[in-house]
Amino acid sequence: MEYLSMLPGPTNVPNRVMRAMLAPIINHRSDDFVKLYTDVVEKTQKVFQTQNDIVALSASGTGAVEASVVNLVKKDDKIIIPVNGEFSSRLSQLIEGQGANVIRLASPPGQNATFDQIKEAFDNNKDVKAFYVVHNETSTGTMVNYLDKVSDLTSRNDTFYVVDSVSLLGAVELPVDKWNIDVCLTGSQKALAAPPGISPISVSAKAKKYMIENPPSTMYFNLARYFQYYEESKHTPFTPALPLLYAYREALTILLEEGLQNVYKRHKICSDALYSGLSAIGLTPYVTKEEDRSITIVALNYLDGLEDKIFRNTLANKFKVLVAGGFGDLKGKVFRVGCMGEVSPYHVMRTISAISSTLAMMGYDTDAQAGLKTAEEKLKAL
Amino acid sequence: MEYLSMLPGPTNVPNRVMRAMLAPIINHRSDDFVKLYTDVVEKTQKVFQTQNDIVALSASGTGAVEASVVNLVKKDDKIIIPVNGEFSSRLSQLIEGQGANVIRLASPPGQNATFDQIKEAFDNNKDVKAFYVVHNETSTGTMVNYLDKVSDLTSRNDTFYVVDSVSLLGAVELPVDKWNIDVCLTGSQKALAAPPGISPISVSAKAKKYMIENPPSTMYFNLARYFQYYEESKHTPFTPALPLLYAYREALTILLEEGLQNVYKRHKICSDALYSGLSAIGLTPYVTKEEDRSITIVALNYLDGLEDKIFRNTLANKFKVLVAGGFGDLKGKVFRVGCMGEVSPYHVMRTISAISSTLAMMGYDTDAQAGLKTAEEKLKAL
Repeated sequence: MEYLSMLPGPTNVPNRVMRAMLAPIINHRSDDFVKLYTDVVEKTQKVFQTQNDIVALSASGTGAVEASVVNLVKKDDKIIIPVNGEFSSRLSQLIEGQGANVIRLASPPGQNATFDQIKEAFDNNKDVKAFYVVHNETSTGTMVNYLDKVSDLTSRNDTFYVVDSVSLLGAVELPVDKWNIDVCLTGSQKALAAPPGISPISVSAKAKKYMIENPPSTMYFNLARYFQYYEESKHTPFTPALPLLYAYREALTILLEEGLQNVYKRHKICSDALYSGLSAIGLTPYVTKEEDRSITIVALNYLDGLEDKIFRNTLANKFKVLVAGGFGDLKGKVFRVGCMGEVSPYHVMRTISAISSTLAMMGYDTDAQAGLKTAEEKLKAL
Repeated sequence: MEYLSMLPGPTNVPNRVMRAMLAPIINHRSDDFVKLYTDVVEKTQKVFQTQNDIVALSASGTGAVEASVVNLVKKDDKIIIPVNGEFSSRLSQLIEGQGANVIRLASPPGQNATFDQIKEAFDNNKDVKAFYVVHNETSTGTMVNYLDKVSDLTSRNDTFYVVDSVSLLGAVELPVDKWNIDVCLTGSQKALAAPPGISPISVSAKAKKYMIENPPSTMYFNLARYFQYYEESKHTPFTPALPLLYAYREALTILLEEGLQNVYKRHKICSDALYSGLSAIGLTPYVTKEEDRSITIVALNYLDGLEDKIFRNTLANKFKVLVAGGFGDLKGKVFRVGCMGEVSPYHVMRTISAISSTLAMMGYDTDAQAGLKTAEEKLKAL
């Protein structure tokens, strides 16, 4: 069954990327592998806009998130992290699990900590070792817009700067080197439009040195091992998920062919069209402040009495369009539309059409015409 | 470039399994996923011959090995483990990394600890918490043949019994429940003949209870999280590598269609044919004692003056047959032929033919005719 996957990930994967998985299985200790993996590393550097070391982990995004923690955070380290949803909360738990002293900058779901709050935390904690931030809170659809300014603080306090951009990197501007991000990571199945299972992570020279001198006692996410293998042979220490590496490389190739700036523009315009089109049919975005709204996760409040399971099942079964429900406390209260990867005017228009038709079938009086017209108008900017 | 992959893994993957990866990307929080994952769990149980809980990790075999350690081993625990090569050594390091008191039963590479040595260790350490064993030492080609007898010791001492069968499970008899194995694990890219990237692990009720009560502080390999998600929704806690799960399921389906006993018999006979055929052309197995020799990893000593890189490159470039070199100290001294997964008389005969031809091209006087004849004779048992 082929669906239009408008999920917060995994997202639609182009056929070219799917077919890349059929490349013959090779020896991961061979020259053929070196060609594949160095290409993966170089293309990832381009998409991350960095010269930093890259490790492509065979794991989900959570694997890369865990790697960013177990390699950098030790007992009693002071760590600052904004928390406003499931994924930032998980990340703060992982950090706490290392025995760190975690300074949580909590804000209500759907709202971001302000830059001033972060600045204040840095002012009050000169000895902060690392600042961790979830770029895009997938559970609620918020996105942080001031990452460029954070490096003034991290440089001043000599703090590691770690960005978990799992559901965003590739969809918006995120120049790792320009913004002095020490560790940046994402997952293959989000804005990069590859299948799930590969998680790239970039590591600055300063963070790399620290990791090599302070390796964790585990292996799979021990980045020092990956650096060593790459330096010695351009191999990975453990057998990588070969078909997924081929697919991930193909996805990067497509992205670079289109050009980063074009990809960002397409995401922004499609996102605008979804927010305004779905608002015009009578829905309201869950995130109230416009500047906090995520480009890639469009979260919408359910209309009164609208039952989550029935709505999403109708959308999936009658129109083959997949969207996600709410996460945790937001279960039954919001639904989330993914806007990433392949997303195009077709994806936007079909999704608005299917959502308004589903609402109509469920007896809601919505203005489909207004929604489609508004979206079409926005999409003209492409 | 299509190679015959006679590697210790990744091994040849049937086209049916490769094509299964092209199944459409689905929501991993949907009923479609529940169908896929419960099927994966049930088929894995059949292949493991167990009713125990199964977790299919999206990671390489090392990931499952690490999971078996971080969920079970705590500071100061007393752990017994035989060590005779790279992978058992790695495992013992992982255990030590948890702060455990590791009792290593060391034997020279190419030899196994005897059952009597293990019994003695159990006799001298009544308080041993867990016994870890690498079923098949991939780096040297040894295989442990007394796993059935170990449960007498583990039951007597109330010890967790953990079997790392990464490069063997699926090729030989390993009835997890009958042998009272608490934790058993493998990797998808070995005898199961799927692409690399999925690592199944089985956990007994007793071990599960312990893991739930004593979870690690990390997440990706925290099995208690997987148990909880499976119980609540038949989902996985993190986005699984969907295409690899489809492929892994297809590989299990093929294996069960053939029948476990037939699969074991095929592996045994092909392995016998490789050992005796390659011996007949003038090579000698690295593992001297026959009962220690692995079914799936046929390690052979290089002839005097035979240069590893030239030999394997000729074999790969002229005959498209891939074999592996030695590991660690054995680099340049042995080469290893994988005998697993799809392995059939064709694989055996083509490999012996290509190896003897390569040796002839390099100026060695080998008896190709004797090798092929001997192998063919052995293969008649199929």
